Amino acid sequence: MTDAVLEELSAALGSAVSTDPRLLEPARADKSGHRSAGRPLAYVSAASVADVQHTLRIANAHRVPVVTRGAGTGLAGGAIAGPGEIVLSTLAMNRVLEINVDDELAVVEPGIINADLNAALLAHGLWFAPDPASRAISTVGGNIATNAGGLLCAKYGVTREAVLGLKVVTADGELLSLGHRTVKGVTGLDLTALMIGSEGTLGVIVEATLKLRPLPAGPVATLGASFESVEQAARASAVITASRLRPAIMELLDARALDAISAHVGVDLGGRGAHLLVQFDGAGAEADAASARAIAESLGGSVELARDAEEGERLFAIRRAFHPAMERLGTVLIEDVSVPRSQLPAMFAAITDIERRHDVVIATVAHAGDGNLHPNFLFQGEEVPDAVWAAADELFTTALRLGGTLTGEHGVGLLKRRWLQDELGTTQYELQRRIKQVFDPRGILNPGKVFA
Amino acid sequence: MTDAVLEELSAALGSAVSTDPRLLEPARADKSGHRSAGRPLAYVSAASVADVQHTLRIANAHRVPVVTRGAGTGLAGGAIAGPGEIVLSTLAMNRVLEINVDDELAVVEPGIINADLNAALLAHGLWFAPDPASRAISTVGGNIATNAGGLLCAKYGVTREAVLGLKVVTADGELLSLGHRTVKGVTGLDLTALMIGSEGTLGVIVEATLKLRPLPAGPVATLGASFESVEQAARASAVITASRLRPAIMELLDARALDAISAHVGVDLGGRGAHLLVQFDGAGAEADAASARAIAESLGGSVELARDAEEGERLFAIRRAFHPAMERLGTVLIEDVSVPRSQLPAMFAAITDIERRHDVVIATVAHAGDGNLHPNFLFQGEEVPDAVWAAADELFTTALRLGGTLTGEHGVGLLKRRWLQDELGTTQYELQRRIKQVFDPRGILNPGKVFA
Ligand SMILES: Cc1cc2nc3c(=O)[nH]c(=O)nc-3n(C[C@H](O)[C@H](O)[C@H](O)COP(=O)(O)OP(=O)(O)OC[C@H]3O[C@@H](n4cnc5c(N)ncnc54)[C@H](O)[C@@H]3O)c2cc1C
Ligand SMILES: Cc1cc2nc3c(=O)[nH]c(=O)nc-3n(C[C@H](O)[C@H](O)[C@H](O)COP(=O)(O)OP(=O)(O)OC[C@H]3O[C@@H](n4cnc5c(N)ncnc54)[C@H](O)[C@@H]3O)c2cc1C
Repeated sequence: MTDAVLEELSAALGSAVSTDPRLLEPARADKSGHRSAGRPLAYVSAASVADVQHTLRIANAHRVPVVTRGAGTGLAGGAIAGPGEIVLSTLAMNRVLEINVDDELAVVEPGIINADLNAALLAHGLWFAPDPASRAISTVGGNIATNAGGLLCAKYGVTREAVLGLKVVTADGELLSLGHRTVKGVTGLDLTALMIGSEGTLGVIVEATLKLRPLPAGPVATLGASFESVEQAARASAVITASRLRPAIMELLDARALDAISAHVGVDLGGRGAHLLVQFDGAGAEADAASARAIAESLGGSVELARDAEEGERLFAIRRAFHPAMERLGTVLIEDVSVPRSQLPAMFAAITDIERRHDVVIATVAHAGDGNLHPNFLFQGEEVPDAVWAAADELFTTALRLGGTLTGEHGVGLLKRRWLQDELGTTQYELQRRIKQVFDPRGILNPGKVFA
Repeated sequence: MTDAVLEELSAALGSAVSTDPRLLEPARADKSGHRSAGRPLAYVSAASVADVQHTLRIANAHRVPVVTRGAGTGLAGGAIAGPGEIVLSTLAMNRVLEINVDDELAVVEPGIINADLNAALLAHGLWFAPDPASRAISTVGGNIATNAGGLLCAKYGVTREAVLGLKVVTADGELLSLGHRTVKGVTGLDLTALMIGSEGTLGVIVEATLKLRPLPAGPVATLGASFESVEQAARASAVITASRLRPAIMELLDARALDAISAHVGVDLGGRGAHLLVQFDGAGAEADAASARAIAESLGGSVELARDAEEGERLFAIRRAFHPAMERLGTVLIEDVSVPRSQLPAMFAAITDIERRHDVVIATVAHAGDGNLHPNFLFQGEEVPDAVWAAADELFTTALRLGGTLTGEHGVGLLKRRWLQDELGTTQYELQRRIKQVFDPRGILNPGKVFA
């Protein structure tokens, strides 16, 4: 059977199909730390919609699983492929098909790297707002399939708010046009929204019509505030939000994160319990920064206000050094819970407690502006230790108890599927599975991901 | 059979069930001008989630259609009930269950009137942004079920952007909790988004967690610009958008609309070809208004700048007089196409042409900031004349050809179901129907609406 499938793929797609281990091996992993049991069957590098359609028609006829893959930077194991599975890479479909300045939209293929698209838009004064920290290495298709967030989304929204329409190939190779070129439209069910965040389980995104924004203009004001404890910093961020200030960015780093960064960049950030970085843009930026400063100081923060963009950049360099700093220290499991913003202090307190009781190491950064925390579990070796899973389990339970969710932006993939029912409830879980079956009756699209 | 159903309903729901013609008759219509063939079977005024569950369980067991109804202000015929159908009114479920100031969210029952919710939020400095012109008379549940837009949505988004989570009762009476209390979350498929705009075909919304905004503060600047022709006014609005200005409101009225309003309010707005109303809010409002003024004048507009809020209100009174003015003149079929903003001039030109060739009367107002036009077909008598349908047909075809959509905010309901496949294509249409079947295997939820 395997041979027949490979033959058919080769006949239809020629050199786009490969069994070269140099392509197959990397497709066994993404950035989640997970790795599949063995090499996938084949690697298809799609160059066109037709390539995607051919691949799916053949796979569907033979009931062979297909794992769609962008840049493989995912943190949930969603793009990992194993034995008997076809890797369908959309990385080579990376053209900008249209930039429409008057309507502030772009039509792109899914494989384009987020930062490359924004580089192309810059000359037009336009901007695709979703800004995952991985924007220099992840694809727009992957951003859509995971509904990626980022640093700026408290003010500018997540990927869902930046997509008007999609072209999607279904499991049986049919091409669908979902959504609109207009900013509004309510014709039938909103399948565009359903595709966003569906992690390769409903169809393959082959084209996207994106809603752009004018590049933010005017002043930018940035401040950094140090606190004795992370609960204090979390309280400051919650009060800033509750005071109706709307920072473009608000990032929180705890003491372990700061220690790791100190060691990595060789600068003494020493003795700080936690750090809050806040940036405002637009006409009222400076007044807003002054208000945020007053709040931070009233809650015990020691505040540094950047005088210009360069100094602002320097403050953010601390945040950007976090992921490299962690990687130097060992293996990292990056978690992604989200809570209502008022619950940030409670969630940080719980993390401190979980860390102690399970005797694990957790360094946490948070997109505090939208209540999204990334507790990073640090350990040695390849395998995630049981204690880490036990601690993660408690982390999820706590987030749900505080009115939060398992995953704010990374998705479910393999990593969180065992907790999915806890959040959705059995009835909704079954309903979601039945919806997947409508799109994919033979279950060939990323089987085992999201739905166990 | 009918008797058995009525008996079961009465046993379960007591006085919440009625067959009083004074309740049944109005439920035969909404504000679309359509009217069902006869009186529905029964009217259930649900006071609780349990009432909704009982109703659906009984209806599902007997395969009796259920038409969910909010305030009945819909313009697509979505809430119209006929013989053999149960009207399930959510109007009495109108409590505010929670206002959370720190997390800027509210939890409400579906029957609350949009304006009543906003009145309750005012004291907290918060605001539910979706602002259909019907906000004083339509329910939040209806707004969600139609994904309502309004005057402010070019800047503040449509209903979809203002809903975090929903509780929904499915056809078989099960209660689902969809979405989150957090501003971000990607656990599984986005069924919240799928419910928004589903027009009562997938389930009954019994509770909503809404994402609020701080009340806009700071200056407001309003201008009115008169033009010789509607194409000129449309060009001005397109250029304003393309210039990266982001008005909170931008409304366009054509000559027929202005004539009707003149006659209604007894003021001579005479001789104007078209009128553009533009409002900016926030820190940069005045500078933005000055830029918009320069654009309007450079394109032949004669501009009046409001000096204060009161004068701004006076300018908008013209727009608000539109619907009453039309109703005085005869029967109105309100249409709702949307086009990419750059295509507004082309769409207005096409409307003038369609009006002439089909010998019908069309007065048009547009939410120009998001390319959404409401051509109002005026005629005498109850029945929509064939010439009006023929003209509407051409209107839709033209909108689709210009990259637009059949309906920007009113929905499909009965009114547009015969054009739905033209926009979605057969494959997507069939897929949508199969998704509906997953939610509603026996087809009892608003049958015949949206999907013919
Ligand atoms: C250092 C680092 C920082 C990160 N920061 C963030 C962050 O701030 N915010 C955030 O949200 N994420 C972040 N991520 C996670 C990751 O970058 C995002 O999930 C990103 O959107 C994945 O894009 P990708 O192209 O790498 O997709 P992949 O990893 O290749 O795939 C991810 C999922 O999408 C599916 N998929 C990919 N392309 C398609 C397609 N065309 N059609 C259908 N399904 C498809 C895959 O099947 C898989 O389920 C970070 C990752 C790293 C390594
Ligand atoms: C003068 C006037 C101006 C208007 N202006 C606008 C405007 O600017 N923008 C705009 O978008 N619309 C506008 N509308 C249309 C209408 O007001 C909106 O569609 C509104 O959202 C309908 O709310 P409702 O409570 O009246 O719903 P209804 O008319 O009762 O129902 C509308 C649809 O929603 C479904 N529904 C209602 N409640 C529920 C529920 N709890 N669960 C599931 N389904 C439900 C119904 O089955 C039906 O399909 C206007 C209407 C009028 C008369």
